[in-house]
Amino acid sequence: MIKTGIVGATGYTGVELMRLLSVHPEAELVMATSRSEQGRKVSELFPSLRGEVELVYSEPDLKKLSSCDVVFFATPNGTAMQRVPALLENGTKVIDLSADFRLSDPDVWEKWYGQKHSSEVLLKEAVYGLPEINRDRIKSSRLVANPGCYPTAVQLGFIPLLEKRLVDPGSLIADAKSGVSGAGRKKSIPHLYSETSESFSAYGVSGHRHLPEILQGLNAVGDEIVDLVFVPHLVPMIRGIHATLYARLHDNSIDIQKIYEERYNNEPFVDVMPEGSLPDTSTVRGTNICRLACYIPQGGNTVVVLAVEDNLVKGAAGQAIQNMNIMFDIAEETGLSYSAACP
Amino acid sequence: MIKTGIVGATGYTGVELMRLLSVHPEAELVMATSRSEQGRKVSELFPSLRGEVELVYSEPDLKKLSSCDVVFFATPNGTAMQRVPALLENGTKVIDLSADFRLSDPDVWEKWYGQKHSSEVLLKEAVYGLPEINRDRIKSSRLVANPGCYPTAVQLGFIPLLEKRLVDPGSLIADAKSGVSGAGRKKSIPHLYSETSESFSAYGVSGHRHLPEILQGLNAVGDEIVDLVFVPHLVPMIRGIHATLYARLHDNSIDIQKIYEERYNNEPFVDVMPEGSLPDTSTVRGTNICRLACYIPQGGNTVVVLAVEDNLVKGAAGQAIQNMNIMFDIAEETGLSYSAACP
Amino acid sequence: MIKTGIVGATGYTGVELMRLLSVHPEAELVMATSRSEQGRKVSELFPSLRGEVELVYSEPDLKKLSSCDVVFFATPNGTAMQRVPALLENGTKVIDLSADFRLSDPDVWEKWYGQKHSSEVLLKEAVYGLPEINRDRIKSSRLVANPGCYPTAVQLGFIPLLEKRLVDPGSLIADAKSGVSGAGRKKSIPHLYSETSESFSAYGVSGHRHLPEILQGLNAVGDEIVDLVFVPHLVPMIRGIHATLYARLHDNSIDIQKIYEERYNNEPFVDVMPEGSLPDTSTVRGTNICRLACYIPQGGNTVVVLAVEDNLVKGAAGQAIQNMNIMFDIAEETGLSYSAACP
Amino acid sequence: MIKTGIVGATGYTGVELMRLLSVHPEAELVMATSRSEQGRKVSELFPSLRGEVELVYSEPDLKKLSSCDVVFFATPNGTAMQRVPALLENGTKVIDLSADFRLSDPDVWEKWYGQKHSSEVLLKEAVYGLPEINRDRIKSSRLVANPGCYPTAVQLGFIPLLEKRLVDPGSLIADAKSGVSGAGRKKSIPHLYSETSESFSAYGVSGHRHLPEILQGLNAVGDEIVDLVFVPHLVPMIRGIHATLYARLHDNSIDIQKIYEERYNNEPFVDVMPEGSLPDTSTVRGTNICRLACYIPQGGNTVVVLAVEDNLVKGAAGQAIQNMNIMFDIAEETGLSYSAACP
Repeated sequence: MIKTGIVGATGYTGVELMRLLSVHPEAELVMATSRSEQGRKVSELFPSLRGEVELVYSEPDLKKLSSCDVVFFATPNGTAMQRVPALLENGTKVIDLSADFRLSDPDVWEKWYGQKHSSEVLLKEAVYGLPEINRDRIKSSRLVANPGCYPTAVQLGFIPLLEKRLVDPGSLIADAKSGVSGAGRKKSIPHLYSETSESFSAYGVSGHRHLPEILQGLNAVGDEIVDLVFVPHLVPMIRGIHATLYARLHDNSIDIQKIYEERYNNEPFVDVMPEGSLPDTSTVRGTNICRLACYIPQGGNTVVVLAVEDNLVKGAAGQAIQNMNIMFDIAEETGLSYSAACP
Repeated sequence: MIKTGIVGATGYTGVELMRLLSVHPEAELVMATSRSEQGRKVSELFPSLRGEVELVYSEPDLKKLSSCDVVFFATPNGTAMQRVPALLENGTKVIDLSADFRLSDPDVWEKWYGQKHSSEVLLKEAVYGLPEINRDRIKSSRLVANPGCYPTAVQLGFIPLLEKRLVDPGSLIADAKSGVSGAGRKKSIPHLYSETSESFSAYGVSGHRHLPEILQGLNAVGDEIVDLVFVPHLVPMIRGIHATLYARLHDNSIDIQKIYEERYNNEPFVDVMPEGSLPDTSTVRGTNICRLACYIPQGGNTVVVLAVEDNLVKGAAGQAIQNMNIMFDIAEETGLSYSAACP
Repeated sequence: MIKTGIVGATGYTGVELMRLLSVHPEAELVMATSRSEQGRKVSELFPSLRGEVELVYSEPDLKKLSSCDVVFFATPNGTAMQRVPALLENGTKVIDLSADFRLSDPDVWEKWYGQKHSSEVLLKEAVYGLPEINRDRIKSSRLVANPGCYPTAVQLGFIPLLEKRLVDPGSLIADAKSGVSGAGRKKSIPHLYSETSESFSAYGVSGHRHLPEILQGLNAVGDEIVDLVFVPHLVPMIRGIHATLYARLHDNSIDIQKIYEERYNNEPFVDVMPEGSLPDTSTVRGTNICRLACYIPQGGNTVVVLAVEDNLVKGAAGQAIQNMNIMFDIAEETGLSYSAACP
Repeated sequence: MIKTGIVGATGYTGVELMRLLSVHPEAELVMATSRSEQGRKVSELFPSLRGEVELVYSEPDLKKLSSCDVVFFATPNGTAMQRVPALLENGTKVIDLSADFRLSDPDVWEKWYGQKHSSEVLLKEAVYGLPEINRDRIKSSRLVANPGCYPTAVQLGFIPLLEKRLVDPGSLIADAKSGVSGAGRKKSIPHLYSETSESFSAYGVSGHRHLPEILQGLNAVGDEIVDLVFVPHLVPMIRGIHATLYARLHDNSIDIQKIYEERYNNEPFVDVMPEGSLPDTSTVRGTNICRLACYIPQGGNTVVVLAVEDNLVKGAAGQAIQNMNIMFDIAEETGLSYSAACP
């Protein structure tokens, strides 16, 4: 059994990690830390875990955490980079679900996250945990930077086009829509039910932190510098991301369906749907699957890719478990094979 | 492996059975029937099952169904009673999720379901599948009438009070609230999103089909004739039932918490929460758990019991799997042990 | 034109008052105060008011407020009682939407609101602003305590029964359900969209501040001491209250429909629906109407009354405008006659 | 008083017309027709209209309809074109909310609506009822084709760019999101609450009927042939459209804010928000306002325009009233000046 710990297990990615680990046949959660909730039963804060998780929140003690085989950080940005170096030194692997190790360029990181990075060396070492691109590097790494929710969907959607250089790299548009859980479990007026239900709006149009992460990923894929307009929107639903992706094709006579099917043929968690399909976020709710569909509407020059995922699973905790499975050399689907409840 | 089939696998209880069976380690779904959808892939109708259920809908052929160890009926009322006799004769066990075998008195059945019952003998033989009451009889039965969604929550909430004769049996009130999936997957104007979202109303106040089922169950429990006012309401959410139960206590100095804890101490799927808890339907979403909390507000004479369940799981498909586990003598929790996704 | 001001115009009752006043033909909003938002345009905080409300938030200056004919307090509990005395002295009338003047007994007030009341004299003078009971006293008052949202629905539902002494006064149960806006516009984790959507739970079962207010009102109606079990629930919708009321009838042969129709025959904002109706909160959304329906299910001894209202209108701001109309002797429906948007 | 009638007053645009007319100070609803509901009180079908609309549904009798000054058609596509000619002949004006007269080219109409157009002459005569473009022609017309919901938002968003030829006309993308009421009030499985809530998906990607309508409108604006990729999505909310519009700028140094403000300066129902604003559909719910915001993200070459409206008001019934006001030469805002309820 893989011994696992979670630092900062009071947010939505934390509780989702606990849910997934509680049914994982080869991993065991031995520690869940929280400064604010230490001493309290996990299942008191999250009654959904009653009977499945018997842990009590503990303080984030380095020594105890070092007894884990792997530690997940589900902390606010800026925390993991302080604590990870010591853990790695003690031989514990780390999967960081925050943004601390996602951007390889410290200057870009500092620009978007508003603080100096405390561990530039590890920033270079960290492997970006998108298995569909980096599986081999993840396998041998000790520090994985788990991708953001939007970046996962947007990259999986654009990758086949960029790898084969099928589109004008300056024409990319990602019109993305997310459920409200993406905003996290913290006191907030704009994310109150009364503010969010029965409403729809864009946000972060002038600049969202996931933009540099996506650009870094897309630039690495096809050796072309891409330009991306990224507009996120808030959907009145709890979970789910729907990315609607647009790009100008060099040649609209390609068999776009075949290109996507071939690219993701062996991927356990990317499902290219049949031609004409309309992926719905509800079909991936609670699962680690990203579903894709692609179109060239009206025989024009623009390709449209639809990508859906659960922001807390493939966009966070599920992908983290997938990365753990890879790092510990067990079957990648372990603990992640089940379908969404419908409806 | 238990070979299972589902008759009428196009509704919400049908698809939920398929989801649950797809992860059940000791059961296998070999057949899903639908007259209207035969020949179509199950996963085309329900894309959430892509990769997990590879079946094609077939017609409800008696011979093929007889090769199953157990057949679930997820059909509209009036269908199962026509088909079940032949299946039982062939040695196949049946778990009926419709109302056909829930009421033991054929006259009461006819009054509430508006048709003559075609199989009065089996109506007597059928065992009412509420494991918390009938576990032993379920174990040895070949025909289980799976309880309705409201009746499950209301009975589990009232049973401890009636078994011990703690309340005036003429004072029972069940104010129940259900998510919209209880109305099923059928064309309907009143259950359109636009009609149901951001609205709340009662329905069936002058008489709901679950009333006689609940009365039959409660009357059997304590050997007292109970009187019940049952008012169901429609909640703008997909899944979940919350029953708020009221009864007049004979003596308000009892330790109500202890009574509930002792009654359900060994029940794997009934969770009596700590004193002062407020069970939330979201904590049981997708699970087979019924959570209970009990109060005697302001030290008065009225006991208030709060009971939550997922209407499609403990209130339908999950309880059916639980019954199957009991009938086939495997651990009762098999395939049903996981917690709700939060949020 | 009646000159009006609002103290504390940044919450949901405040913005609803502004919306209603902006279309009121005989009242004018001249001042909206907020300590935290002073200097900011009202329509910047609430873009829905762009083009209709051009005010800038000002500090709650007593002198300026005294130039109003009437001031509405939409402040947290404990604020109005400090400021109201001076305003009344200056000849300005006050309608308080907080709880400060709702309970006539200062000891009861202190018990439930956890602080000493600073103005016991005014507590006696204040008129409880439920027009259906107190219309004449409201007309001649200078200080109206606007009722709470639950108390309005529950009282309007029970009044006809109690006035005619038709029920056992010790048997009252109010199972009430409210939309989330009742929790107000303040930072909160439990009222986040992700926590509240697709979930349903009770709250305040062991004691809710609206209980003493309801009891005071019901006790005044029929000269009998009533006992009430009050269980509020949170519904995943923004607006609306649905109260399901139960009481034991002395005689179940009464014409309950006629009793309700006669009682509310001349009430502009209470709509007794035809027999067999199921009032839906969405039909009163945004309006000042309370819709009622009554049943005696199964010819039993329990009467069931269904009452719906918009918690922010008839349950708060709309009733406050209705009270203003009465106090200033203009037609009671002025500015409040329009129907709910459907759907 | 303008005497008005509605043909087909049982759908969502019909009931919205009734709501708006019931508060219109210079119009009176004298007739609401429905074949299926004739003889039934309007307020029985729509209890929200109790007390405001006392009409009984009548059959669509041509003679009686001809006594109206104006008749609104809120019928399924293909009905109005059969009935309008006779009404016009009798001197009654017509505002058609269906698609029958929106496309001036009968061949295009037939291609997208799957039937031959029965009144090609009127197709030429009909004026497209987008006041912001056609105000003068609407004023003198007797037959107005009321625009579709998506076309209204998309055209209002693109018009300033195309009128001034600021963008590459071949680069237009409209990523549009609509609430579920856009699907109408008809029996349907995909629009059930259980199917639509907590889910998000695109639809009509390979071709939606609003595409030719938008193209016709945009092509007329700037004398350039535009190419548009139009991807509609379904949002789990009742009302509201959010169009996110993209186009490639010829020159990104323009003052985009000023261009929009100047264009819509005198428009009573188009609100250009301050720079940096994020229009939310909830701020226009129930109102006739279209709110716009514009961005040039990251100083790039792509302009992003955000446009929100209520699909049933500015996208249907409200715009129809606005057109009526223009046709009958009364103030354009009459009956339409109020703000959205918040929250």
